[in-house]
Amino acid sequence: MINFTISPLDLSYLPELKNTVDNKTKPLGSLGQLESLAIQLGLIQSQPLQRVVDKISLHQPTILVFAGDHGIAKHGVSIAPSSVTRQMVLNFLAGGAAINCFCRINNITLKIIDAGIIEALTTDEIGACKTFFSQRIAAGTNDFTKEPAMTLTQVNQGLAYGASIALQEILQGCNLLMLGEMGIANTSSASAIMALLLDTPSEICVGQGTGITSDQLLLKQQLVKQAITRVTNKHAKEHVLPITKLSPQQVMAEVGGFEIVQMVGAILASAQAQTPVLIDGFIVSVAALIAVSMHTHTKDYLIFSHQSDEQAHQLILAQLDAKPLLNLALRLGEGTGAALALPLLTAAVSFYNDMASFESAGVTV
Amino acid sequence: MINFTISPLDLSYLPELKNTVDNKTKPLGSLGQLESLAIQLGLIQSQPLQRVVDKISLHQPTILVFAGDHGIAKHGVSIAPSSVTRQMVLNFLAGGAAINCFCRINNITLKIIDAGIIEALTTDEIGACKTFFSQRIAAGTNDFTKEPAMTLTQVNQGLAYGASIALQEILQGCNLLMLGEMGIANTSSASAIMALLLDTPSEICVGQGTGITSDQLLLKQQLVKQAITRVTNKHAKEHVLPITKLSPQQVMAEVGGFEIVQMVGAILASAQAQTPVLIDGFIVSVAALIAVSMHTHTKDYLIFSHQSDEQAHQLILAQLDAKPLLNLALRLGEGTGAALALPLLTAAVSFYNDMASFESAGVTV
Repeated sequence: MINFTISPLDLSYLPELKNTVDNKTKPLGSLGQLESLAIQLGLIQSQPLQRVVDKISLHQPTILVFAGDHGIAKHGVSIAPSSVTRQMVLNFLAGGAAINCFCRINNITLKIIDAGIIEALTTDEIGACKTFFSQRIAAGTNDFTKEPAMTLTQVNQGLAYGASIALQEILQGCNLLMLGEMGIANTSSASAIMALLLDTPSEICVGQGTGITSDQLLLKQQLVKQAITRVTNKHAKEHVLPITKLSPQQVMAEVGGFEIVQMVGAILASAQAQTPVLIDGFIVSVAALIAVSMHTHTKDYLIFSHQSDEQAHQLILAQLDAKPLLNLALRLGEGTGAALALPLLTAAVSFYNDMASFESAGVTV
Repeated sequence: MINFTISPLDLSYLPELKNTVDNKTKPLGSLGQLESLAIQLGLIQSQPLQRVVDKISLHQPTILVFAGDHGIAKHGVSIAPSSVTRQMVLNFLAGGAAINCFCRINNITLKIIDAGIIEALTTDEIGACKTFFSQRIAAGTNDFTKEPAMTLTQVNQGLAYGASIALQEILQGCNLLMLGEMGIANTSSASAIMALLLDTPSEICVGQGTGITSDQLLLKQQLVKQAITRVTNKHAKEHVLPITKLSPQQVMAEVGGFEIVQMVGAILASAQAQTPVLIDGFIVSVAALIAVSMHTHTKDYLIFSHQSDEQAHQLILAQLDAKPLLNLALRLGEGTGAALALPLLTAAVSFYNDMASFESAGVTV
């Protein structure tokens, strides 16, 4: 079983960081959320140095997009069939998806990971592509309305896979990690995880995803409810009540997705390496919720890029006490919200590093 | 008197623009506000061609920061004295302010205009700087609690100055204009303009600005109310009731600021040249409100960058039916909100221009 050790941030650097921000030539607090962002980044980067950084750096910001397929998809809970997961992976490799566009304009390194789509890419399809990684756990998860999505061994394998690729990026110089996902029906999995972890009624956790019909929404709610009932009954028999006492690993095994598990591993490994993670939308936020429920200090290293159009996302954000940077009614995934928020991190860093102080500029407020 | 002719947008290109967006490899509508942004930009750029543009372009995005001083400042309605307006102009020229940082990281051209600060910069202070423009109307406005801030002739002079510099930029190739402002006490002027234009109680229009004390807030509310009473009584005597019948030019003369008037001119000239304007926070939004009340079709060319922390800003945005891109609790001005929102416009353009269609990517949703 893979273990993570995540240290809380040493907050003794906060006053000095705040003082630097407050002495910039601007009214106190007038850069709003950018100020807390600069302070959080400064605080994280001060830890290994054991003193406040003079300059915050953003180096090789990287998005890892994890793709996986879901057994529940065959019930028709998404706008598209599972085959589209694979088609979109090929689209990522060809550079034609939204996330490719946003990475290009914001100088973000993009890597695609097959965490377990139904049909693996062929050698020809991968070609000489150096940004594609095969970390397949299986050819899609089981239908979690009827049986566990995966085994606990697969959960641990997924955590290790996710941790490994995140640490590779960090060792190669990336000091800001972003995560994205692609997987037809993965909002169903994320909603079920949320329902179990937060002990919240499934109707509240299930939303329109990328835009299903109201009939599909009803079906999706019924199926997620059916899964929760299956899991609850099973664990009640095993005398593990209440349901919130299920371990996060058990929850992932019961209703998770391979891409979600690998993202949890990536988040935990980044937090262990004291590297901030910029969280995308609903699915990645659920991965963050799992990571935080496994190791509470993980939260110190998380930045939330946006609030998506998926209704349940607000609840997850509130649960994590997160204040997202953007709210643009996005519901695409792929890490697009994180990519769109990156320029705000760049702006926070630039004002912290380069703005004049009252003294240096001769401004006498 | 300066005249503007502003054409409504020809909406016949909308279906084709929408079709292009809908055929990108993403769920319908899943890029949220970025989709309407791409469509607005595409619609504006289609006008001169009289056909839908193949590619949207963003060329030489430019921020014009207008600075001016205000007679009302001497009452102490701001966190700083009027001398700080000039000090901040020097800070802009030295590259040390927040707006300088955000322009550098987002490749925005920045130009600073003295629209009427109290003490003009010296030749030595300007030096060889080619991004500073002197368009002084006078050494600060009059105290509008006691008399009109400026004459109608000065209003027209300001509109012409603002129009002229905006048109220079557009002729030199800029196809996206942003505006910013610096002027101690200019939220007082903006609030008074809002109160008169919208016939709204001054307490609702007056806010904390860059962060005044509650005593200062009370004083600011009283002074703005006093100004509204002065203007109302005067025009009642002249039988021009109700107050909303005052022309926007009269409102600017009574309670305006030189930087605000020049921004109105710049907005109107840009709209006339069918060039989009990315609007900053409260003060620039008030300039936009004036421009729209002068020529209603101006609104077609406006994009709203953010909702600021100033309470009355929400009302102005609602009045203009505007959906801002960011909401980061900013209250700095200088055009910083516009500069921070620019990467979202770049993203909208990039997905419109470069994302694969379902057909080209072989995705079969």
